[in-house]
Amino acid sequence: MRTEIATLGEFGLIKHLTEGIEPKNASTVYGVGDDAAVLSYPDSKQVLVTTDVLLEGVHFDLTYVPLKHLGYKAAVVNFSDIYAMNGTPRQITVTLGVSKRFSVEDMDQLYAGIRLACEVYGVDIVGGDTTSALTGLTISITCVGEADPDKVVYRNGAKETDLICVSGDLGSAYMGLQLLEREKSVLRGSTDVQPDFSGKEYLLERQLKPEARKDIIQKLEEAGIRPTAMMDISDGLSSELMHICKQSNAGCRIYEEHIPIDYQTAVMAEEFNMNLTTCALNGGEDYELLFTVPIADHERVQDIEGIRLIGHITKPELGCTLITRDGQEFELKAQGWNPLK
Amino acid sequence: MRTEIATLGEFGLIKHLTEGIEPKNASTVYGVGDDAAVLSYPDSKQVLVTTDVLLEGVHFDLTYVPLKHLGYKAAVVNFSDIYAMNGTPRQITVTLGVSKRFSVEDMDQLYAGIRLACEVYGVDIVGGDTTSALTGLTISITCVGEADPDKVVYRNGAKETDLICVSGDLGSAYMGLQLLEREKSVLRGSTDVQPDFSGKEYLLERQLKPEARKDIIQKLEEAGIRPTAMMDISDGLSSELMHICKQSNAGCRIYEEHIPIDYQTAVMAEEFNMNLTTCALNGGEDYELLFTVPIADHERVQDIEGIRLIGHITKPELGCTLITRDGQEFELKAQGWNPLK
Repeated sequence: MRTEIATLGEFGLIKHLTEGIEPKNASTVYGVGDDAAVLSYPDSKQVLVTTDVLLEGVHFDLTYVPLKHLGYKAAVVNFSDIYAMNGTPRQITVTLGVSKRFSVEDMDQLYAGIRLACEVYGVDIVGGDTTSALTGLTISITCVGEADPDKVVYRNGAKETDLICVSGDLGSAYMGLQLLEREKSVLRGSTDVQPDFSGKEYLLERQLKPEARKDIIQKLEEAGIRPTAMMDISDGLSSELMHICKQSNAGCRIYEEHIPIDYQTAVMAEEFNMNLTTCALNGGEDYELLFTVPIADHERVQDIEGIRLIGHITKPELGCTLITRDGQEFELKAQGWNPLK
Repeated sequence: MRTEIATLGEFGLIKHLTEGIEPKNASTVYGVGDDAAVLSYPDSKQVLVTTDVLLEGVHFDLTYVPLKHLGYKAAVVNFSDIYAMNGTPRQITVTLGVSKRFSVEDMDQLYAGIRLACEVYGVDIVGGDTTSALTGLTISITCVGEADPDKVVYRNGAKETDLICVSGDLGSAYMGLQLLEREKSVLRGSTDVQPDFSGKEYLLERQLKPEARKDIIQKLEEAGIRPTAMMDISDGLSSELMHICKQSNAGCRIYEEHIPIDYQTAVMAEEFNMNLTTCALNGGEDYELLFTVPIADHERVQDIEGIRLIGHITKPELGCTLITRDGQEFELKAQGWNPLK
């Protein structure tokens, strides 16, 4: 079944895709259907705005990414940015550029993923723009969220002796990508290796259906811990840590042995003959939280499941250093995902 | 002089483009440089959010659109949506997808246009996303604005007997586009007609450097007139009027003789052998305001320069009707710009 998008037209398609959307948040006054969405935030909140674009052929490959997963991910990566400010995502606008290759049913799948993510995270779709494109698929999502003014966490607040923490594990989404790329080669007949995903489901899920760490933000709040600096890890730990250090005018020391890595990630790195630590440092798309806390919070943060201490903040002149398992010291380099290289 | 974007990388390019940006609005707490921008709006304001995407080959043609003009227009069309809610634009995020064809100098031009528009309209650039693209140029801008809650004007408030008003004149941007398309054919040698833009500057300006009608919003406020429904005319008068009627559950009657058309538009329609009224009804990209006011405001609205009364709102069962100069009645059809046809 394939319905051409042209049969619905722009307004028909938007109506079709946004049918039955009911705002869940008190701050959503008016959603889809006018020149702009109307939101109402109380004085006591600051408004957070972030935006992320995904372009076919650059950020995703539809030969192995299902459209529903893509929609889910496109929304979640924006939520992740709001959580990384210690905020709560509330609304998104969805902008799509769609070539003739795509049908109404394709858009249904994509939107099903976006709507599912919004349901899971309690976010309202309040508007957007849908247009044809000469080639490919463009998904640009803007997310609006809220935070208590005294609780917003920036990247620039890390202080000397602060502890550096990460949630979850790193490098698994990158390994999932390697797996999928190998599968694609197999489908093209350019290699003899047969794809076998059994026991590797976690890696695929990390790549195809990442989650934003709302749970970690809640746990930190419950534990009364306010990070001094925070960001989400989308381009790789090295790159993000260097952002925090640069913006905080600080240095850091992190320890290879403390970087959290899942067993499956390690197995795959071995299989692909890749350096495991390099994958964890530069892999990207983890959507875990990287944050710093005062040393006084040491015990409280250590007690939280899913958070790992990987090092500490230093004076700026000491630079950003990785201490390997055998005690060697290396300067961290941002070799992660760079969409403009 | 051509600098490859890859030499700067994503963060280098963003830093380069956003250098020296100083927030002008009290509501901008923190702009470019973190996971999200932080805004602070007082309780007394509602927050408006709108988004518009421009794709190369669909919305613009760089063979005749200068990048600086394109940047200006990409920002202004978003401001126009905020004014159409009776609001004031305050912040934008700018998302760019850029193929290798473009250099740092190209991006400088594009950003110069965006920054100029922001300066003229008092808007802050607070964030965005910049990435490479396989082909072409993608510009997606989201605008955040504010309005007094009791002053927001939706599309759905038009009432029977309300007067229908438009600002400025219609069809001129569309005629500018026809002119530029002809010029392009000439450059390709596919026609013998020599381009002559003298005396047609207004049409080119309407197409290449449209303005949002901030001035009209101010004049209405000063005159104490609150429109009952309003939207901006981006897809053509017919299409927009039908949106207002549908969402307001109303019909309308508009008069051909009252539709405001510039002299140059008329001359060009003659030259191109096009129906002038069709151009004015369906041309698109006018970015004028279409609004309805209670009949009691008749005299006050008539006194405002740059506003024309073109008809009135009726019961829904009467449909949307155009009365021609010779008294014939036609049902309005939305034949305007449809980016998905």
